Amino acid sequence: SGNFFLLAGPCAIEGEEMAMVIAEKIVAITNRLEIPFVFKGSFKKANRSRIDSFTGIGDEKALKILKKVSQEFDIPTVTDIHEVSDAAMAAKYVDILQIPAFLVRQTDLVVAAANTGKVVNLKKGQFMSPESMQHAVKKVTDSGNDKAMITDRGTMFGYQDMIVDFRGIPTMKQYAPTVLDVTHSLQQPNQSIGVTGGRPEMISTIARAGIAVGADGLFIETHFDPANAKSDGANMLDLHHLEKLLKDLVAIRKTINHL
Amino acid sequence: SGNFFLLAGPCAIEGEEMAMVIAEKIVAITNRLEIPFVFKGSFKKANRSRIDSFTGIGDEKALKILKKVSQEFDIPTVTDIHEVSDAAMAAKYVDILQIPAFLVRQTDLVVAAANTGKVVNLKKGQFMSPESMQHAVKKVTDSGNDKAMITDRGTMFGYQDMIVDFRGIPTMKQYAPTVLDVTHSLQQPNQSIGVTGGRPEMISTIARAGIAVGADGLFIETHFDPANAKSDGANMLDLHHLEKLLKDLVAIRKTINHL
Amino acid sequence: SGNFFLLAGPCAIEGEEMAMVIAEKIVAITNRLEIPFVFKGSFKKANRSRIDSFTGIGDEKALKILKKVSQEFDIPTVTDIHEVSDAAMAAKYVDILQIPAFLVRQTDLVVAAANTGKVVNLKKGQFMSPESMQHAVKKVTDSGNDKAMITDRGTMFGYQDMIVDFRGIPTMKQYAPTVLDVTHSLQQPNQSIGVTGGRPEMISTIARAGIAVGADGLFIETHFDPANAKSDGANMLDLHHLEKLLKDLVAIRKTINHL
Amino acid sequence: SGNFFLLAGPCAIEGEEMAMVIAEKIVAITNRLEIPFVFKGSFKKANRSRIDSFTGIGDEKALKILKKVSQEFDIPTVTDIHEVSDAAMAAKYVDILQIPAFLVRQTDLVVAAANTGKVVNLKKGQFMSPESMQHAVKKVTDSGNDKAMITDRGTMFGYQDMIVDFRGIPTMKQYAPTVLDVTHSLQQPNQSIGVTGGRPEMISTIARAGIAVGADGLFIETHFDPANAKSDGANMLDLHHLEKLLKDLVAIRKTINHL
Repeated sequence: SGNFFLLAGPCAIEGEEMAMVIAEKIVAITNRLEIPFVFKGSFKKANRSRIDSFTGIGDEKALKILKKVSQEFDIPTVTDIHEVSDAAMAAKYVDILQIPAFLVRQTDLVVAAANTGKVVNLKKGQFMSPESMQHAVKKVTDSGNDKAMITDRGTMFGYQDMIVDFRGIPTMKQYAPTVLDVTHSLQQPNQSIGVTGGRPEMISTIARAGIAVGADGLFIETHFDPANAKSDGANMLDLHHLEKLLKDLVAIRKTINHL
Repeated sequence: SGNFFLLAGPCAIEGEEMAMVIAEKIVAITNRLEIPFVFKGSFKKANRSRIDSFTGIGDEKALKILKKVSQEFDIPTVTDIHEVSDAAMAAKYVDILQIPAFLVRQTDLVVAAANTGKVVNLKKGQFMSPESMQHAVKKVTDSGNDKAMITDRGTMFGYQDMIVDFRGIPTMKQYAPTVLDVTHSLQQPNQSIGVTGGRPEMISTIARAGIAVGADGLFIETHFDPANAKSDGANMLDLHHLEKLLKDLVAIRKTINHL
Repeated sequence: SGNFFLLAGPCAIEGEEMAMVIAEKIVAITNRLEIPFVFKGSFKKANRSRIDSFTGIGDEKALKILKKVSQEFDIPTVTDIHEVSDAAMAAKYVDILQIPAFLVRQTDLVVAAANTGKVVNLKKGQFMSPESMQHAVKKVTDSGNDKAMITDRGTMFGYQDMIVDFRGIPTMKQYAPTVLDVTHSLQQPNQSIGVTGGRPEMISTIARAGIAVGADGLFIETHFDPANAKSDGANMLDLHHLEKLLKDLVAIRKTINHL
Repeated sequence: SGNFFLLAGPCAIEGEEMAMVIAEKIVAITNRLEIPFVFKGSFKKANRSRIDSFTGIGDEKALKILKKVSQEFDIPTVTDIHEVSDAAMAAKYVDILQIPAFLVRQTDLVVAAANTGKVVNLKKGQFMSPESMQHAVKKVTDSGNDKAMITDRGTMFGYQDMIVDFRGIPTMKQYAPTVLDVTHSLQQPNQSIGVTGGRPEMISTIARAGIAVGADGLFIETHFDPANAKSDGANMLDLHHLEKLLKDLVAIRKTINHL
């Protein structure tokens, strides 16, 4: 359709019902707007600031829910992996393996993901330049897998803020299809309470700029009740605002396609 | 027309002929595209890295050329001032007084500009947050002048790079009409040779993002022969590319206006 | 004596009595410790965040107090200038003309200071690399004045923090004697209330590191009652702590001198 | 002895002979200077920029060399781990398990290291504030291990530079003994060739500042032939310069101890 694609879903799989409800709503919206949709959910949160943060409902249990979502709605799914042994396990259930930003320099993990033959979504480290992502992509292609993609989730800007460098999108598109992770890019890390903050009022701003500069896809964490979500509540998009946001973005994309 | 406005012209007024040629070409383009146009030119370059850099052809001589451009093409003009005494002098010749980014914290200069009754274009310091620009605007309004505007020209990102924080545009629009200075935002300062570099291949990327997030205007330095310009050659737009750039931006703006 | 020198005093000259009291106390301390001392005070605060901040008691009035301090205690003085016309005026009263960090790229101002024949103290812009300060020094020497010095007052690190790059001190010592401005380096700019914050509990840390890496001098703003000072209260050193701080630094300096 | 301690050795264990030679030389120096010494060597390099970079000689083989160094010279050793399963394996051979900076937010890895009962050396992420390291330490203590230590290896400063925030050392000492990693702090990442650069001429500057502000220990990668080392050649210290460097630092430490 010439449209951008969308990776979206809750931060973490908190249970089957919430996953199904969220997937159903996003499927309905993306069908209306003709946006290719990949359901996103983490089976485990491995890099929380504090040891008492929620980390998941059980790995296989969460992965099976992702599989069920995929079958129920006939859509691909994506989840993030954190150890080499996660790669083969997760590959049994999902279509895209995502390498978290903190881990994208771990060669073994990237190669393990590549070796599954699945699409590998490489998140740009907050500490990396757009140009340096070519080396991460090369680790995938050197493993015989040509299905790498890149996702930008913002860059460190002082201790307690992140910034999106929009020059990075055309730069990284030279290496692989490039996605803008709208919600994580608006995080405000290193807050004194040990819980990451966010600026969700800026979601529309960052998303519009991303589409305008040619992002191939968007990544959006969304929940029907962000304030009560078990992780990343501070920067998920309220699901009720998703359709209006996407509708506006589709209009910009159509304009861009004709320039 | 619902369109964005454009501040454009050469970095420095190098002489009457070049000013007239550049103005004529931009007037033709902006008339075709129905873009309100303000001709920009510095009468003096006061903050060069090196003492042997070009600083100007003479203050009054350059200001008179700006006046002539204004009369010949019936368009407003803008120039930047650097000392309190510049304000009254420049106000005799131009319509908008611009406070350079390095100087926007100098209260006397801002107040002197405000007291002329002219429009005051406050450039955001490379070291300032978008939020802190409200204090600069307030210095203008507290002087009885309600014609402040703000221009973002990028923010320091390490010693040798600048970055545009697109969250700043909706933030600063709360205080005053907000312009994105596309060409200076792409500077690469502190290069070892003492001459600022640039990334002109990113002009279209930055400009599209700016219009997509609602910038009221754009600021673009342009020259028919950037490589031989006497200042800022590394990041001015080649005038031959201006019409295509603006045409694309008008299309995005029209789409945005209907969202 | 092989010791470092000290530029110290209140942020602003608020009146004769406070200037004399502060000078007298610092003179006594620096005499005991054999530290060459330059009394510092601003005759005008020109770059405040807000228009309603204190800006001074009158230019000539404040300059005359600086002169009186100089004569009374037989010590040199330093003050900062903001416009070309300030240079000749201030040179009549003080020994060192200081170019503020925001203004160090203003060629006319640097040259005007150099032309007085006084020592010129160039503050490194928060947006500048240590290496780029060589161009500022060259503007002084190209004006026939070989008495430039450099002061580092920290570098922008995100919107609301500053950081000292200690690699900069040996780098800048290649160009001119280099001072570390301990108190301004600990500012926290762009706070939402429009008043700059600070971290005075880190003064000793930053000062010790500066002496350990070979700074030629230190710059410390100090006041007998920082909480009630009319500017920069958030980061001035309480005068009661000055002697202990300097005593420790002299011990480090003596050790360094023998390595 | 009141002295700082030293973690030092080559970046990677390239073979038994080089490990023994380097250990022997450092032991001789640190014995003379009464510096408690921990031999450092990576058994595996897991996070290289490029897939074709050297990653190691074999995990167990390298770990056995570390054990042999420990027995031969009666000194403790430290190595870094990258996956949960590395923790128990490495704990059989070394005394301190180090969590790499990129991985310090991975809760499972930190807990696995803590559960071995060994000392856990937590490297501050380049993207983390000093304050946020308290949460990493807490993951260790909450696992029933009170032997956490912290190592600062610099903070991201633009894409291609790192900076040491010396305010972080007293801050992190509130949570655990704090080490300054002198050589990695001088890295220049994200270089276009995909190999990290460095500024080894600044080693003495950074080390002196670290000792002056009270670092409990230093971490220095050193090699008798940095130019031909298989990793991090750009920023290791030439072993021939180690004794002079340490001797100077001991003098500063002794001075600091008496303040």
